[in-house]
Amino acid sequence: MPTIKLYDFPVSGNCYKIRLLLSMMKVNYQSIQVNLGGGANQTNDFLAMNPRGQVPVIVDGEITVWDSMAILAYLAREYGDEKWFPQDNVKMAEVMQWLAVSENELLYGIARSRAALIFKRPFDLKQCQEEGQIGLEVMDKHLSDKSWLVGDNVTIADIACYPYVSLASEGEISLDRFKNVLRWVKDFEALPGWVAIT
Amino acid sequence: MPTIKLYDFPVSGNCYKIRLLLSMMKVNYQSIQVNLGGGANQTNDFLAMNPRGQVPVIVDGEITVWDSMAILAYLAREYGDEKWFPQDNVKMAEVMQWLAVSENELLYGIARSRAALIFKRPFDLKQCQEEGQIGLEVMDKHLSDKSWLVGDNVTIADIACYPYVSLASEGEISLDRFKNVLRWVKDFEALPGWVAIT
Repeated sequence: MPTIKLYDFPVSGNCYKIRLLLSMMKVNYQSIQVNLGGGANQTNDFLAMNPRGQVPVIVDGEITVWDSMAILAYLAREYGDEKWFPQDNVKMAEVMQWLAVSENELLYGIARSRAALIFKRPFDLKQCQEEGQIGLEVMDKHLSDKSWLVGDNVTIADIACYPYVSLASEGEISLDRFKNVLRWVKDFEALPGWVAIT
Repeated sequence: MPTIKLYDFPVSGNCYKIRLLLSMMKVNYQSIQVNLGGGANQTNDFLAMNPRGQVPVIVDGEITVWDSMAILAYLAREYGDEKWFPQDNVKMAEVMQWLAVSENELLYGIARSRAALIFKRPFDLKQCQEEGQIGLEVMDKHLSDKSWLVGDNVTIADIACYPYVSLASEGEISLDRFKNVLRWVKDFEALPGWVAIT
């Protein structure tokens, strides 16, 4: 099987999701650094792979997949065992609920707060921080009697939510009052195959 | 089989996605109007169904699913034929790419532009309109040589993207320069089972 190519960027939380899943599933891949500052994501070649001009993108033989959520789902089904993205309809839908939270409250809340502060992007910091906290509250309540977001083991729901939650302090959002989220972060970081963002 | 209950709100584009899929699949359901203005989505009973306190939610016998994307995936797999949300990994991932666009550029771009104008929500209108246009450009280029977003027939990718695209004018975003998107909207509205938002 050819090695998967991951078009990657070190500090991107969305790329980090893919590195985490591949590492936890023990799948080899080649990380190709995309020079976002230099416009390498806006070349015709790159846009032919991903019309959105964003990382991450994976190329797996003849298959190209863009968008972190779609890549997680593809890799889990293609290379992982049943646990990562269950086939059962109800469990699949439960995973997708948290993929949605990762794409909404966490991305537009926490990741944008971080982008406003670190990358000086023109987002309304206070509004983003409030949205991030709403997502964290929903997660915290859910995790009050559960180890993982869905079922009894880690899934791509946890992988999708972990990066921006763990980076909340870079968006000046404190996790102190989200005790169950803090416990879940700690448990996640103890999983075999966990790697730091950089 | 018990009738599906849809916790619904007439002008919500996310609820409209569910009504469209159920109508196109010819699945009976009961629409339960949630009085959002009156706080009916913040009661303990409602939050027990959906910790986010949002519509849509479906209750299907013993199963409760929240989030429009998760509901579309669940209903397609449970009640639809293979075409709506294909089992094949690559096709599934392609559908999920456009579910992500629907949750990102379309929701945070077009839907928020509409919410800023119609519901006077405190969003940065210009920023939201720009983000919506980025999503529309990506769709328009993709649809230049394709009838539907994924494969040769309508899928939940089209269902997820259509509502807010078709409502773009309410966010003061013109579709005039997106000729392929306009053609796709017209084709979508000619599908059996299509219904208007209200």
